[in-house]
Amino acid sequence: MFNASPDIRQQINDNPPLHPAEGVRHSPISSVVLTNADVDHVAGLLTLRESQPFSLYATSRVLSVLAENTIFNVLNPDFVVRRQLALEQPFEPRTRDGEPLGLTVEAFAVPGKVALYKEDASAGANFGSVAEDTVGLRITETGGDGRSLFYLPGCAALPAGLKARLKGAALLLFDGTLWRDDEMLAQGAGVKTGQRMGHLSMAGPEGTIAGFADLGIARKVFIHINNTNPVLLLDSPERAEVEAAGWTVARDGMELEL
Amino acid sequence: MFNASPDIRQQINDNPPLHPAEGVRHSPISSVVLTNADVDHVAGLLTLRESQPFSLYATSRVLSVLAENTIFNVLNPDFVVRRQLALEQPFEPRTRDGEPLGLTVEAFAVPGKVALYKEDASAGANFGSVAEDTVGLRITETGGDGRSLFYLPGCAALPAGLKARLKGAALLLFDGTLWRDDEMLAQGAGVKTGQRMGHLSMAGPEGTIAGFADLGIARKVFIHINNTNPVLLLDSPERAEVEAAGWTVARDGMELEL
Repeated sequence: MFNASPDIRQQINDNPPLHPAEGVRHSPISSVVLTNADVDHVAGLLTLRESQPFSLYATSRVLSVLAENTIFNVLNPDFVVRRQLALEQPFEPRTRDGEPLGLTVEAFAVPGKVALYKEDASAGANFGSVAEDTVGLRITETGGDGRSLFYLPGCAALPAGLKARLKGAALLLFDGTLWRDDEMLAQGAGVKTGQRMGHLSMAGPEGTIAGFADLGIARKVFIHINNTNPVLLLDSPERAEVEAAGWTVARDGMELEL
Repeated sequence: MFNASPDIRQQINDNPPLHPAEGVRHSPISSVVLTNADVDHVAGLLTLRESQPFSLYATSRVLSVLAENTIFNVLNPDFVVRRQLALEQPFEPRTRDGEPLGLTVEAFAVPGKVALYKEDASAGANFGSVAEDTVGLRITETGGDGRSLFYLPGCAALPAGLKARLKGAALLLFDGTLWRDDEMLAQGAGVKTGQRMGHLSMAGPEGTIAGFADLGIARKVFIHINNTNPVLLLDSPERAEVEAAGWTVARDGMELEL
């Protein structure tokens, strides 16, 4: 996520960088699961350590986008193995060397859009998007009590099947890009609506807050928040409204325990 | 450059972000000149505003690398025009709409290396590098007094012809990646030497400090500094040595006037 909250400097002071645990270039990242090929989901791969071993999971569609972009060859195959995930097939992410992480992940298609840089204007209203372009993840502890974390950083609609899947979840991290669909136009920050970008908005009778009100989800956290979204302002009425509706607005350095 | 100096937090406090001059998404960047296709030179293009108009100059070689990577299609051609520059041919960078910036730029080949992700191991010791892979820039005010700023963020050697070109410059921004060639190996931070990465080092009889000692350059600034380089530590003997030799170590937020 590139969108920084306005109190970024305070957060840096509150969360000093951690020192590496092993050696000067160690990182705790041992496995990466991609949900989309858009820049805000894949560009971070370019800033990882050159010799960091990890495994990279994505749908065949997203892997093919990475494969056609030679810049991702900075992910040296000696250190990074790319593994294809299939929709609706739970799997256990493993390290580069095959060690299981103790988690079970299931990816499922959600309403969304092909990556901006792969849009095909000739393909009609959905720009050539397919089911594997945008996925959500269900993450559980392998052999645990079954409580689930759902991660959906981009989602354009809440069809009944998706609601049924998320119902009663222990923890939901959900697309909080915009407060309202025409927010970027209203602020002079852009010409696209949320729907055009593949994002549901928070407010209104068709919005996220209303859509999740009765699903019995224990904790709901907005992530992937655009810098036009007024919920980022701690003293805004919109922030008060999402919090009153039982949502938390994510911040840099936030830690969650399931 | 991804390499941050250790006093980054102090620098953020010293240099608060500027507000946009025009509209909420304005940026002063109206033209970009690339000197190389490596991630640290091109990945920043992916984080610019989606609808930011600018012109992008590079050699045909670097432009072809961008063209073969679809992710750079986030640079919407409605806003970003790509223009090919030729070595040794001074040109005036212009905005997207053709307005001259008042500067004259000349690009010239310097000893270097093809981008890491385009290395061809079968091509021998230089990995298939060509002259257009790594360039330096001479920048002067159009119609001014001819004083020059030279920008060379990556340079692997100082042949006589390059020295002659830089002699007597008003301002030099030069590759300061490493203090010594085997620094990353010595610190356990990597397995490559500076030479393997296409970078001259600062120290020693063949190093940058010695190489530029007698060229009469008015101001010499090290840029592109790796986080293993001890000159980043304000109290290191290496920092004292480069400053005693007349060099400045660049920092985030630094402003230079010619």
